[in-house]
Amino acid sequence: MIRFSVFYPTTEGATFDHAYYVEKHVPLALKTWGLDNAEIDKGVNGPYVAAVHFTFDSMEAMGAALGAPGTGDVMADIANYTTITPVTQTSEIVG
Amino acid sequence: MIRFSVFYPTTEGATFDHAYYVEKHVPLALKTWGLDNAEIDKGVNGPYVAAVHFTFDSMEAMGAALGAPGTGDVMADIANYTTITPVTQTSEIVG
Repeated sequence: MIRFSVFYPTTEGATFDHAYYVEKHVPLALKTWGLDNAEIDKGVNGPYVAAVHFTFDSMEAMGAALGAPGTGDVMADIANYTTITPVTQTSEIVG
Repeated sequence: MIRFSVFYPTTEGATFDHAYYVEKHVPLALKTWGLDNAEIDKGVNGPYVAAVHFTFDSMEAMGAALGAPGTGDVMADIANYTTITPVTQTSEIVG
């Protein structure tokens, strides 16, 4: 299994609309990529104000999903909830 | 629910023993903190070579677990698998 995580680094003066993120943005990403669910984090302590973790069966499945035509709309929607540039991590779940 | 993540930033010249991490270190942490399981990541792309995600019912439960006497041994064990200084993140799982 592959985990695709998106992290939003805590940034001086930046904004992040957690409600929009949970209610609008992540559902848009799930619909676009054909996924049932994701885990959404609201930062309490540490370098990130928020994060999301999507899970795919394989790197190929992830590549196919992210290659969907709607991915551009998902990216464009980021400006609707934050001024932070996200950081992405792809990992193999090994345990 | 609270997610406690530990990230190992990819570092020039550093080492990370993924087998020891999965087979020895994370099980030691789980036993020490009274947890059944965790999710372990092996980095493919992005800033981290490895990560682990523990889940607790509440901040209080996490504080009680990490306050266990064995936590010092868990920390001391880090030197057995990596030269990287980990970064931790605590988050509330909101979706």
